[in-house]
Amino acid sequence: MKYNKITQKVIDELIEILGKKNVILDKEKMETYSHDETPVEQYANMPEVVVTPTTAEQIAEIVKLANRELIPITPRGAGSGLSGGAIPVFGGIVLSVEKMNKILEIDLENMMITVEPGVVTNDINPPLEEHGLFYAGYPMSLLTCYIGGNIAHNAGGGKAIKYGVTSRYVMGLEVVTPTGEITQLGGKLVKDVTGYNLKQLYIGSEGTLGIVTKVILKLVPLPKTTVDLLVLFKDPKSAIAIVPTVMTKAGIIPTSVEFMDKLCVKTSCEYLNEHLPYQDCGAMLLIEIDGTREDQVNEEAEIIGELCLEKGAIEVYVADNYTTQERIWSVRRDIAEAFKVVSPHQSLEDIVVPISEIAKLIPEIEKMSEKYDILMPSYGHAGDGNLHTTLVKNPKMTMEEWYETEEKALKEFYAVIKRFGGTISGEHGIGCKRKPYMPIVTDDVQFDLMRKIKNTLDPNNIMNPGKIFDL
Amino acid sequence: MKYNKITQKVIDELIEILGKKNVILDKEKMETYSHDETPVEQYANMPEVVVTPTTAEQIAEIVKLANRELIPITPRGAGSGLSGGAIPVFGGIVLSVEKMNKILEIDLENMMITVEPGVVTNDINPPLEEHGLFYAGYPMSLLTCYIGGNIAHNAGGGKAIKYGVTSRYVMGLEVVTPTGEITQLGGKLVKDVTGYNLKQLYIGSEGTLGIVTKVILKLVPLPKTTVDLLVLFKDPKSAIAIVPTVMTKAGIIPTSVEFMDKLCVKTSCEYLNEHLPYQDCGAMLLIEIDGTREDQVNEEAEIIGELCLEKGAIEVYVADNYTTQERIWSVRRDIAEAFKVVSPHQSLEDIVVPISEIAKLIPEIEKMSEKYDILMPSYGHAGDGNLHTTLVKNPKMTMEEWYETEEKALKEFYAVIKRFGGTISGEHGIGCKRKPYMPIVTDDVQFDLMRKIKNTLDPNNIMNPGKIFDL
Repeated sequence: MKYNKITQKVIDELIEILGKKNVILDKEKMETYSHDETPVEQYANMPEVVVTPTTAEQIAEIVKLANRELIPITPRGAGSGLSGGAIPVFGGIVLSVEKMNKILEIDLENMMITVEPGVVTNDINPPLEEHGLFYAGYPMSLLTCYIGGNIAHNAGGGKAIKYGVTSRYVMGLEVVTPTGEITQLGGKLVKDVTGYNLKQLYIGSEGTLGIVTKVILKLVPLPKTTVDLLVLFKDPKSAIAIVPTVMTKAGIIPTSVEFMDKLCVKTSCEYLNEHLPYQDCGAMLLIEIDGTREDQVNEEAEIIGELCLEKGAIEVYVADNYTTQERIWSVRRDIAEAFKVVSPHQSLEDIVVPISEIAKLIPEIEKMSEKYDILMPSYGHAGDGNLHTTLVKNPKMTMEEWYETEEKALKEFYAVIKRFGGTISGEHGIGCKRKPYMPIVTDDVQFDLMRKIKNTLDPNNIMNPGKIFDL
Repeated sequence: MKYNKITQKVIDELIEILGKKNVILDKEKMETYSHDETPVEQYANMPEVVVTPTTAEQIAEIVKLANRELIPITPRGAGSGLSGGAIPVFGGIVLSVEKMNKILEIDLENMMITVEPGVVTNDINPPLEEHGLFYAGYPMSLLTCYIGGNIAHNAGGGKAIKYGVTSRYVMGLEVVTPTGEITQLGGKLVKDVTGYNLKQLYIGSEGTLGIVTKVILKLVPLPKTTVDLLVLFKDPKSAIAIVPTVMTKAGIIPTSVEFMDKLCVKTSCEYLNEHLPYQDCGAMLLIEIDGTREDQVNEEAEIIGELCLEKGAIEVYVADNYTTQERIWSVRRDIAEAFKVVSPHQSLEDIVVPISEIAKLIPEIEKMSEKYDILMPSYGHAGDGNLHTTLVKNPKMTMEEWYETEEKALKEFYAVIKRFGGTISGEHGIGCKRKPYMPIVTDDVQFDLMRKIKNTLDPNNIMNPGKIFDL
């Protein structure tokens, strides 16, 4: 793909559309927009200009300009992505939605909220609380990520086992297409089969099919009470076996079932100076239950606790107040940070397998860890079969050795995942980080379908090029 | 679009692929395949041949043959559709999945079931019951419809307010593309962001993008107890107002909130010789709650009942046993049948609006009913804003007058729906019945996106042509 460089004429035109303060050319300021949360040294690339539009109409004009001048556009949310989806790999324009950050409407009668794409996910719920409602999307980066980015990646997170992922709650989208047209997909409608489900096609398309400019989200009743169980098991197998049992035997869908292997618990506890009794366990589950009534949630917690013990759990700890819950959850949330003490150079993975395969997968990961002489801790959303296994650079390796090891280990890892009926990303996306590995889990027919869709909707390939697959 | 007629050579080739018993040429037998549940006299068309393949490979061969010979293929489920989606409007091949009717696997560990597309929706649950699981899709035609048809239309139904529609449960699809390639979209994976969400694009595409040959469905814990409330209100407005209140004030998501206007209740009761106390009411809600524990469900029913009375309900009747529940539900289910006594000529609609707009919509419908001198009863899934308003021919009208009235009234009705932020189909689909009205709710940008996708995936336009939109 040949793109044109941005000329002064283009800059002038952008300033014409957006005003001077929304066109960033300063190198130092632009640096932030050259990367996301993937390792800077591997994946960063500088944009030629960063723009911060405030309306869909402005975005449509920019997209038309980019088509006319053959300039790539990279849409950007909070930059908290983990797949390099917001990196301007061909330079050009980074289009940040950071100034489109308003909550536009809270509609109680329809139990929906309308927001701009630059709203921080965690800011959606506070104004809803007094109305007994909440938005159930819960990516682990919710303190920083934008709802627009959540849609681009169909973000999942820690509560998907009960509440599902982002796509379940997106009722309407306003989008600017790759040719610069504005349209409204869906609306305040919980059912809609009027033609193709373009809305769902856009969700998870990583900004390669256009830019989301407005979002209508469905809300659900706010649970009034929460209990967390910390359950210790002798090995991953017995830990994982409990997941379907809880749902079928007890008829309870937990809010979260988070898995941590022993290495994760140990490293995170040491990092936090936290004294969880992990010494004897081979795996830990963090099970959360929520609901409307305290007695019912407590009873469900008791049922699950008993089931766990019946099925061989070593110990069950109950956290039914905020302080203890926060202690437990911070062990889970700080795992990634904790391993940075070992080495800041990591490959944070996002594989997903059928739940039943997790127990078989863990020994394979242990073998690979030994073979490649790197740490490969596993943790994540066991209830969804979604593990954030992380490859941690052995401090003794040179960077060159690490990159070589990383590539080889990832290839082998993904091939194992494929063999277990899994795939390479459950919620972080493909971006540029996982693009080289897509052929391991994607057949030619699917590539062909995806390429055809991309080509016909974005004939000049200006919309976030270089992501997911090459044309 | 110019298609070729089916020649003896093509027939021979079909017999070669499928065997003689799977190639139907007998006119009388083919008649069944010329229509669905839309009025035969308006929408039927004879196929040139009907085939009943049993494998994806056979279907792939047929599709390749159809491309080579430029023959249209109309995929068909149970023929229970209400939008003409399975009618072979250009003749050609009707491809019925009726012989692909096996449950292939029940996977308890992953809580999933794998089925062929010709499995009757209602047959999915009985073998799951002993395992404490169920498939939560619940189209009102579940006794006859196929799961393949449910996927083609993204079927909703009476329990979507709590359980969502078909798409929520489809984890994996095997499809044959319009060019005759077989691929697996998704799998036993509850999270998956590996490239575009082709699976969701296929769901609801009404067989215009290919043929589903295998389905993996997610299962959920089987509720152990159910209570139904029949609630009488003085008018639709007070009935509808209760829906968000139940969810926000009480924090309860009911399984169903079915709405019936007075005319519906009266007509259905008379038809069934049922004596519900409808005389004084202007609207009725049927609210179902389900759950794991009897005491909890009873308590929730009580809370909802009290809320209804607080908000002006005339009366609340509780049905907590199977017999009474069946009596109430049959009033709801038999509405369409009951109106056939007035006239068999009807247009069964499927509009959806934001829930808040239903109360405003009802008076508009009453006005139209008067203006066009036809009955326009409204009933349906109030919890989803999805109403099956039905235009019933005035017996005094000639057929010609009826067709003219139907078209005019539908145009006006859909324009009103659009004004209320709604759309023309929530779960029945567009097919050929609603195709002429698509421009009322679909803008040029969306048409362009849909046409581009259709053109690039089905370059010869052989896959269910004449449905949803014209090329």
